[in-house]
Amino acid sequence: MTETDGVTLLPRLVVQGAAEAIEFWTQAFGAEETARYTGENGAIVHAELAIGDARFTTKDEDGADRSPASLGGTSVLLMLAVDGVDQLAERVVSLGGTVVYPIADAEEGGRGGRVRDPFGHEWMISERRA
Amino acid sequence: MTETDGVTLLPRLVVQGAAEAIEFWTQAFGAEETARYTGENGAIVHAELAIGDARFTTKDEDGADRSPASLGGTSVLLMLAVDGVDQLAERVVSLGGTVVYPIADAEEGGRGGRVRDPFGHEWMISERRA
Repeated sequence: MTETDGVTLLPRLVVQGAAEAIEFWTQAFGAEETARYTGENGAIVHAELAIGDARFTTKDEDGADRSPASLGGTSVLLMLAVDGVDQLAERVVSLGGTVVYPIADAEEGGRGGRVRDPFGHEWMISERRA
Repeated sequence: MTETDGVTLLPRLVVQGAAEAIEFWTQAFGAEETARYTGENGAIVHAELAIGDARFTTKDEDGADRSPASLGGTSVLLMLAVDGVDQLAERVVSLGGTVVYPIADAEEGGRGGRVRDPFGHEWMISERRA
């Protein structure tokens, strides 16, 4: 292990239905919700999640920030290296997500594919390297 | 420092003009390009960048993946904790980006704001905690 310099970069996923999305990510990805802040109107203004050591945040869409459902797509893909990508893709589909590229062995080695969650965010999942 | 479990999550920024974007991120954010793969048509199909320890990847938009310019916005914000956010915001503007929320002291402590790069990706920048 090497020293880290403390610079961090976390993706912040804007979604339509953040509470449902958190439930999905928990069930499909094994994400753990570590913080949630809710506004007066019930919308989630900030929540933090972890998949193992990998962290991300989320919020309900609002006038400033729009979801993939509103924009008609997403321009930041999420590259997730985890264990058990085949089972992960199956869980995504069983919970209402879709397969963009099936899980397969990659030419350059490794195994992975791409799934879209029910909220329009796209996850490039690859088998974690030991 | 604690052991890490090897699960990683990297944002993958789809852009219109990836070569120009890499140049921008290099100059504005101090990013270092660590890998680049170019397709037969000259488009960047994959590039890897690092801002200190924080890593992300990018690609030119194509038929499958669309940029913020094409979608009319972005639904994954990028939360970057670094040193010198005031100077960073100034560099972003001087290089053609815009300020979404000015750099200011936050109620909850810390200092930060939000900038948009010339390619439509939005960066929530906050001063790194020591």
